[in-house]
Amino acid sequence: MKRIKVIVAYDGTRYCGWQIQPNGITIEAVLNQTLAELIGEEIKVAGASRTDSGVHALGNVAVFDTDSNIPSERMMYALNQKLPADIRIMNSEEVPADWHPRFQKSIKTYEYRLETGTVPNPLQRFTHYFVTQPLDFMAMEEAVTYLVGEHDFVGFTREECQGKHTIRKIYSATLLRADTEILFQIRGNGFLYNMVRMIMGALLEIGKGRFPPVYIQEVLKGESKEVVKVTAPPQGLVLVNIEYIK
Amino acid sequence: MKRIKVIVAYDGTRYCGWQIQPNGITIEAVLNQTLAELIGEEIKVAGASRTDSGVHALGNVAVFDTDSNIPSERMMYALNQKLPADIRIMNSEEVPADWHPRFQKSIKTYEYRLETGTVPNPLQRFTHYFVTQPLDFMAMEEAVTYLVGEHDFVGFTREECQGKHTIRKIYSATLLRADTEILFQIRGNGFLYNMVRMIMGALLEIGKGRFPPVYIQEVLKGESKEVVKVTAPPQGLVLVNIEYIK
Repeated sequence: MKRIKVIVAYDGTRYCGWQIQPNGITIEAVLNQTLAELIGEEIKVAGASRTDSGVHALGNVAVFDTDSNIPSERMMYALNQKLPADIRIMNSEEVPADWHPRFQKSIKTYEYRLETGTVPNPLQRFTHYFVTQPLDFMAMEEAVTYLVGEHDFVGFTREECQGKHTIRKIYSATLLRADTEILFQIRGNGFLYNMVRMIMGALLEIGKGRFPPVYIQEVLKGESKEVVKVTAPPQGLVLVNIEYIK
Repeated sequence: MKRIKVIVAYDGTRYCGWQIQPNGITIEAVLNQTLAELIGEEIKVAGASRTDSGVHALGNVAVFDTDSNIPSERMMYALNQKLPADIRIMNSEEVPADWHPRFQKSIKTYEYRLETGTVPNPLQRFTHYFVTQPLDFMAMEEAVTYLVGEHDFVGFTREECQGKHTIRKIYSATLLRADTEILFQIRGNGFLYNMVRMIMGALLEIGKGRFPPVYIQEVLKGESKEVVKVTAPPQGLVLVNIEYIK
């Protein structure tokens, strides 16, 4: 028995997210089924990040245990021959039997992609969130600076997550603009449920002038009189990678 | 009766190209049908560029004549409400009754998008051509310089197009590299059938070391002993825009 770690990229458009569900096709279910067909064993992958319906990944991470004699480094090629084209295994390697992608210190990087303009580019309709309203980029740029550091992100998650441990450390948060695109990149030691999409929702409200940039800081400090929870839609979000650290 | 010019963007993935065909859905057919539903007249659009099956556009151009009382500038919004999400009208405006998108001097810009690496990014599978072989970027970069100027491009089109007027002028041809992407941009006063994809095919052969960079020049001058016609696949090609000049 060996444990294999895979890096998984996917176009989340037609999936109900990562985690197996009674109704609807998920990344986890397709991986389990494809591995079962390939190896002839019942396989259960354990994933690092349970991305939501419609969210994409370039570097989600999963492990599974197998007796297969396919060399661990070749597993990616064998899997890619059987997987649908919207799921790709970017790498495969053996890891120690107790290595688990969720119980290991890590830094995750997410990207949220906005497109601005009058009419959306049809080639970006599954990878960007299209916004017609004019956005104050400089206000948004100031707002992201308040995200960096260790904060309580309870104001940027769903109510049902309150009461849990909601402190997270953000190492960097940047906003880039290129033509009609705005890219938000955030790198941190962990993210609460819907956290990136709710931060993006708040940044959009700031860009539209509904709140000043300091609103982000007020929510993080629990000092905002008004906390409006807006969740930006899933198609703009990409889990870029997960770096495991000692 | 007025003539309206529209700028049309589309994700060509699920279409059999621009031009109406007896079998298979095309951009032209969808536009005609959507206009007929919107306006209640039989409409026949005339397009500038008959892009192939699977080829994309950000700025193809078409005109149509109508008695509709929808203001010309509002036509784009009315159409976008009825069109499928993979076709978007980026602009609409009235033009003189004799203005035709194919019989007007113009400069067209095409982009061909390559992705290189071991495993393709699933988010780019409909917009890039994925190449696993290592490419000599510097050789390709030299090769594109030979394209600029007025040349006979008969070596970069299908046999059946020979005998026609095959001289075209290329204003610029550039190759950009960013991470795993290589973008080829070419701007010229006209393009023969399959010309950009056959140039890309030749550039790939040069990148793989089959021919030296000067092969492009030899084909253009009709001096190459061996002319190998390789057509790069459609999904990497985008008609970026058409500039009309006096």
